[in-house]
Amino acid sequence: MSGNSFGTAFRVTTWGESHGLAVGVVIDGCPAGLALSAADIQHELNRRKPGVSEVTTARKEADEVQLLSGIFEGETLGTPISMLVWNKDVNSSPYEPFQHIPRPGQADYTYQLKYGRRDHRGGGRASGRETLARVAAGAIAKKILTQHSIEILGHVVEIAGIRSREVSVAEIRDRAERTAVRCADPEAAELMEAVIKAAKEEGESVGGIVEVRALGVPPGLGEPVFDKLDAELAKALMSIGAVKGVELGAGFEAARLRASEMNDEFFVHAGKLVTRTNNAGGVLGGISTGAPLICRIAVKPTPSITKPQKSVDMTTMQDVEIKITGRHDPCICPRIVPVAEAMVALVLVDFLLRMSPAYSAARS
Amino acid sequence: MSGNSFGTAFRVTTWGESHGLAVGVVIDGCPAGLALSAADIQHELNRRKPGVSEVTTARKEADEVQLLSGIFEGETLGTPISMLVWNKDVNSSPYEPFQHIPRPGQADYTYQLKYGRRDHRGGGRASGRETLARVAAGAIAKKILTQHSIEILGHVVEIAGIRSREVSVAEIRDRAERTAVRCADPEAAELMEAVIKAAKEEGESVGGIVEVRALGVPPGLGEPVFDKLDAELAKALMSIGAVKGVELGAGFEAARLRASEMNDEFFVHAGKLVTRTNNAGGVLGGISTGAPLICRIAVKPTPSITKPQKSVDMTTMQDVEIKITGRHDPCICPRIVPVAEAMVALVLVDFLLRMSPAYSAARS
Amino acid sequence: MSGNSFGTAFRVTTWGESHGLAVGVVIDGCPAGLALSAADIQHELNRRKPGVSEVTTARKEADEVQLLSGIFEGETLGTPISMLVWNKDVNSSPYEPFQHIPRPGQADYTYQLKYGRRDHRGGGRASGRETLARVAAGAIAKKILTQHSIEILGHVVEIAGIRSREVSVAEIRDRAERTAVRCADPEAAELMEAVIKAAKEEGESVGGIVEVRALGVPPGLGEPVFDKLDAELAKALMSIGAVKGVELGAGFEAARLRASEMNDEFFVHAGKLVTRTNNAGGVLGGISTGAPLICRIAVKPTPSITKPQKSVDMTTMQDVEIKITGRHDPCICPRIVPVAEAMVALVLVDFLLRMSPAYSAARS
Amino acid sequence: MSGNSFGTAFRVTTWGESHGLAVGVVIDGCPAGLALSAADIQHELNRRKPGVSEVTTARKEADEVQLLSGIFEGETLGTPISMLVWNKDVNSSPYEPFQHIPRPGQADYTYQLKYGRRDHRGGGRASGRETLARVAAGAIAKKILTQHSIEILGHVVEIAGIRSREVSVAEIRDRAERTAVRCADPEAAELMEAVIKAAKEEGESVGGIVEVRALGVPPGLGEPVFDKLDAELAKALMSIGAVKGVELGAGFEAARLRASEMNDEFFVHAGKLVTRTNNAGGVLGGISTGAPLICRIAVKPTPSITKPQKSVDMTTMQDVEIKITGRHDPCICPRIVPVAEAMVALVLVDFLLRMSPAYSAARS
Repeated sequence: MSGNSFGTAFRVTTWGESHGLAVGVVIDGCPAGLALSAADIQHELNRRKPGVSEVTTARKEADEVQLLSGIFEGETLGTPISMLVWNKDVNSSPYEPFQHIPRPGQADYTYQLKYGRRDHRGGGRASGRETLARVAAGAIAKKILTQHSIEILGHVVEIAGIRSREVSVAEIRDRAERTAVRCADPEAAELMEAVIKAAKEEGESVGGIVEVRALGVPPGLGEPVFDKLDAELAKALMSIGAVKGVELGAGFEAARLRASEMNDEFFVHAGKLVTRTNNAGGVLGGISTGAPLICRIAVKPTPSITKPQKSVDMTTMQDVEIKITGRHDPCICPRIVPVAEAMVALVLVDFLLRMSPAYSAARS
Repeated sequence: MSGNSFGTAFRVTTWGESHGLAVGVVIDGCPAGLALSAADIQHELNRRKPGVSEVTTARKEADEVQLLSGIFEGETLGTPISMLVWNKDVNSSPYEPFQHIPRPGQADYTYQLKYGRRDHRGGGRASGRETLARVAAGAIAKKILTQHSIEILGHVVEIAGIRSREVSVAEIRDRAERTAVRCADPEAAELMEAVIKAAKEEGESVGGIVEVRALGVPPGLGEPVFDKLDAELAKALMSIGAVKGVELGAGFEAARLRASEMNDEFFVHAGKLVTRTNNAGGVLGGISTGAPLICRIAVKPTPSITKPQKSVDMTTMQDVEIKITGRHDPCICPRIVPVAEAMVALVLVDFLLRMSPAYSAARS
Repeated sequence: MSGNSFGTAFRVTTWGESHGLAVGVVIDGCPAGLALSAADIQHELNRRKPGVSEVTTARKEADEVQLLSGIFEGETLGTPISMLVWNKDVNSSPYEPFQHIPRPGQADYTYQLKYGRRDHRGGGRASGRETLARVAAGAIAKKILTQHSIEILGHVVEIAGIRSREVSVAEIRDRAERTAVRCADPEAAELMEAVIKAAKEEGESVGGIVEVRALGVPPGLGEPVFDKLDAELAKALMSIGAVKGVELGAGFEAARLRASEMNDEFFVHAGKLVTRTNNAGGVLGGISTGAPLICRIAVKPTPSITKPQKSVDMTTMQDVEIKITGRHDPCICPRIVPVAEAMVALVLVDFLLRMSPAYSAARS
Repeated sequence: MSGNSFGTAFRVTTWGESHGLAVGVVIDGCPAGLALSAADIQHELNRRKPGVSEVTTARKEADEVQLLSGIFEGETLGTPISMLVWNKDVNSSPYEPFQHIPRPGQADYTYQLKYGRRDHRGGGRASGRETLARVAAGAIAKKILTQHSIEILGHVVEIAGIRSREVSVAEIRDRAERTAVRCADPEAAELMEAVIKAAKEEGESVGGIVEVRALGVPPGLGEPVFDKLDAELAKALMSIGAVKGVELGAGFEAARLRASEMNDEFFVHAGKLVTRTNNAGGVLGGISTGAPLICRIAVKPTPSITKPQKSVDMTTMQDVEIKITGRHDPCICPRIVPVAEAMVALVLVDFLLRMSPAYSAARS
């Protein structure tokens, strides 16, 4: 049983290799009657696109989405939506030396072992290019969420140890997209940019932490005991290539708090039950509370660096030293922001659609 | 669509409320021909049982498992295995005051909103008692893993900020189970015990970090691009009640490393490809590498404390101050160890069984 | 990947062997707030119970259902509902001779091949006793359907070539349950009874055809292109042990009609679009039309007969002649009626719950 | 939850509307290392293609498949295989009159009710053109089955009441594809052709019965108690547009047999257990026996006929009389043969891949 689909009610299946003909996605379960155009999707794809600043890869890709099905007269039909982006101007030559030499920190080795073969060109199926399909699907998810007044906000909170100060929702909205590193704290952003450029010059790369918040999430999303909202978010975010950790609300810091500090106490405010703190990050018992959803991911430094590295030629089983050429992101955090947002959007739409009207009826 | 099942090939469905008649689990997909007795399961249930030391709740539960189906003449039939534990001697009176008052940090509030009702007794379905069913299923998963020479080792690495020193596999095997806190570093264990007891006396509770390692995991487990091994582990572990964060290998520390530090370089050793470091935590591209699997979870302080807390009476919508009585764990970390091990075991067995023979045939 | 679960939104998992400790079912996805008691389920179990007339097996089973979870103060919680029936007074001795000799027409041979072992007592997992769990789950499904004004009516339309005349809904409601064979045409019923008794005396058994109608089904149920309403019904009904064929509406007769005879033309009646015929059986393009759902199943003669039969002793690989003793149904059709109704009810509730409110919103 | 995917281990998702840009399919779970080219798929698509004889529609479609992913250097990668066929030279004008008038016997009415809109051009998503994607996926399934020495043979056994005589496997192999109606009995084929032509001239259409046999199926396929081999076949075949009934082995005839006639007795032949009859159709207890799999489907007459029919204009809610123009199949049976074969192939491959090696290990 393979695992190229995500979600149950809003089910997304991605396909495509980095240097194959195209990369695409099929969405099964998008409600009928949603106004949808290629422009809605292109906007998000452009946010993910490489080549837009010095801190990302210099590779140029048009990445123009083509909508193939599920839409009629500008509205969704309730049938599967198929989309693809053609892979243009791919240059596979920098990958030729590594056909039999697994690059450290990459999926080369494990794909070879699991499948007995792999498309080595551009990382094949394990390429970050697959996230393009996630972002395209996420763009539709976001459009549905907007109709439910749910907003997804991603930003970079740390790069190479440099932390953003605490920022407000307004600051994220206004500033994150304006900086090359997608950090809402301009001073930290400047330092982050500098450290990325320095790493790049040394043939190195750096990691960081990305935060995604979801505002306006209604209470009741999430299906305990296994398909909890936080559990599905953890899976969704950990399934992004470079992610090594996921946390919600207080996260790992919760391990050092006492219950009286951690528990978000309840109060009445304007006739409604509220909390003043949000250490839970918007989830209790796997179900959304109505408070903002807050999750963070640890992003490792991009493994493709020009610095020499040790590896093994698997045909001769000899130690070798490799130098990776080509143009790679010295820090993937800024480009992971729209991907992480897409994954959070997919989880939320899925849970929205998993609630049935019969269910709601019984509830009221 | 509800979410009380986990896994695809080794599919586990848990059921039961804390103070209902029983708590149980059905496993669909356990291979035929596995020697299995109640004792195999009881051993793991006893590790999770409360009342065994001063640092856990004083509640006494026999928690004797009853096997109802799927086994014949001491071997599994390949048909569903149904197991249950009867809930005996439950005392629901300490929960009566909270029928309409959600306890901070608990699922009371969100269950009420989602379902319009809840079984308030003992936390109902959201009770930690549900993990008993996970541990029972995990015991069978572990038995299968043992046949594949895979070992699961859980231990506490941090409580209330007190960290275990780096410990070897041998130390975890030998010592973790001997200390009341399941920490393999005896000196740290002593301090942890002291801090838990102090918190308890103050009517408080503390959190910590639990690590699970899996040794002997063959390469090739995990199904990219969504059902990655690390993604499923993240979901599995985050679905445990008190968990607020999950990380693999270097985890959040990876955000502060450079690629040359993070990447696990490949070498030839005794004719085989190996790595000397394991920052990846045993997973590359969502597929197991063959190196030990290493994951850690952040466990929040148990929300049930005797210290007064603010909440709201939802019938009158008035602020109230509550005091939770009854006997609760001042630190759940030691008892989460077998639960986290069970979840890791369930993920690994599921991926083992997701590989088909036809698939393997094509691979070779 | 095993297959002991049915449905996606109203997901039913059955477990248990015929002569094991118990047979049971877990339902995940039953909406919260449904009034439910053991009596609701017992009523349907009693309809399936053997020993109630001369035309069914003389075996006596109390078959008392026990509700273990998911219900609180008489209402469903939205959490899994676990139910079981204990297997009492089982007598496995008549099955001892067949431990290594597969009975013709039974699952003995295939279970042995697939799993390398089987519980031979009473047919083990392949026993008709497993349908008890389906009927229990179906009873809850029916209760939900009743709230949506959907009625399920099953009756026998043919036994051993004796056909019921065309009967009205009123006749099915009034008469089917009153005859021993569950046929709404009293004259045919009498003949059917006679032919069954004659077969029984000869050590034989006979088959027949059962029809299930669903009235009040709203238009829109069914999820093309694979999870069509008729496709899921076909699976649901074919999964019942003795069923060899399934048809909807005109069914196999459609193969002999011309389009002008087969097509149900549309008319306006009282301001609404209607059809005067229902050759479609209530489904077009895999989606319910709002007309009554009509499906029929071909039921083979019960394979367990006392007449001598040829088989093979698999330990010696010698031809043998066997005589099956014990008490078996000379015609299973009457007892299949509540099982078939249960399966239709499960399909309908599942599709009702698969429609999400967000989906509906977009539709309106 | 939508239903455009089929299978669990070999999971097929189809997409596309009849007059949209393209129709396609994504297969997730095809094992790595399968030699595969477009020609393998084109061969099966050509068998389904219209315009090849007088008894099918005169519409011409190139239907050239394009392989977009999952293949590298002529072999499958184990990653999703995406394929599409562009919709060329579509003429939507014959469908304009029916934008608000549902055609009898078609899915127009139910799609409109369910989704609140539909793509009326060429039947949109409900068009028989969707089966092209099934045939493409089935071509890959067949290639895998061939490696396991499993052969799928479809043929027409009845049209408009004219029955093929009993034919041997050799006759099906040799003759079915040579006749315009895909019937292996040349005399019946001639009569069938004549009756189809006559119906066409009258502006009518006729139905029939298609049989699919699978030879070489190993024992052990199928997952009781719900995902039985016959149950999944019933779903798979009933999900084809025009199918109103499905039967296995003796099928509906079983309802008229006695157990001593129906039961396939076991004998030893050449040291192996065999049966001389195959009334079971190759399945016992939902698991394949090793005998040929035999299933038949009832195919209704194509609903699109030129004869005047009654319908309703849904904008004015007035009765109207319609005449359907355009070129339609006067009998869809011959073209359904490759579609039914594809569905049987998909079911068999799925069950082959659902068996895990760990499972097999426990079995041996």
